[in-house]
Amino acid sequence: MTSGGPIESAIFPKGVEISSNSFTGKVWLQRLVTDATFGCTIGNVTFAPGARNSWHKHPGGQVLLITGGTGCYQERGKTVRILHAGDVVEIQPDVEHWHGATPDDWFCHLAISTNITQGEVQWLEPVSGADYGCSES
Amino acid sequence: MTSGGPIESAIFPKGVEISSNSFTGKVWLQRLVTDATFGCTIGNVTFAPGARNSWHKHPGGQVLLITGGTGCYQERGKTVRILHAGDVVEIQPDVEHWHGATPDDWFCHLAISTNITQGEVQWLEPVSGADYGCSES
Repeated sequence: MTSGGPIESAIFPKGVEISSNSFTGKVWLQRLVTDATFGCTIGNVTFAPGARNSWHKHPGGQVLLITGGTGCYQERGKTVRILHAGDVVEIQPDVEHWHGATPDDWFCHLAISTNITQGEVQWLEPVSGADYGCSES
Repeated sequence: MTSGGPIESAIFPKGVEISSNSFTGKVWLQRLVTDATFGCTIGNVTFAPGARNSWHKHPGGQVLLITGGTGCYQERGKTVRILHAGDVVEIQPDVEHWHGATPDDWFCHLAISTNITQGEVQWLEPVSGADYGCSES
């Protein structure tokens, strides 16, 4: 699917559009697991082409399981990693990073926020145009 | 995909065939996350038609995210739940259960074993033919 068509999700429900100034562009979230018994929360996140979140970090870490489209992941001071279905991203606690779709394709991942008793996500500044240089080419 | 064709996985790698007497039939496992930092482990599990695991329980609980095929999940004393792509199963700590493919279709799920410091999976007896009555029909 490319930017011209409707945005669907991959396998899991697309959920509702996120309304937050910590995101740029259209992003949808379906919460899948919220029971604190499990010590982690699981959500399905779908990004329209060009959409991404702001720089942020997780006190307890997070794992991304990529299920569709083409995305980007960048840690502060490192190069952008291009992501496809089947890829796995392990985000260590307190590492500043962002993720989102490439400019020309949608992107979908499962997000498993781990060790949730360590605290909630900490949002930082939006990704600048210079940093958002991710592209398949 | 039905029982006559080759068994592939869904999105994530199929991995290697499990050799264990806690499984009946052909089952494959690809470990995706093993870093103890995250407090959980994540694997991709693919079952051939008719394959399933034995009754077991997890001291820290487990979540199944269904990615393909048709499967079964049963907790001790309850009816079998039929599963398809997009379904989520929350398995509470120490609840005895089993899961696997239906007789006529393959099955694939992500398995997120949570609160791993609580201890490893505890295997029990195989699923009897009478219990393995799962079917879409």
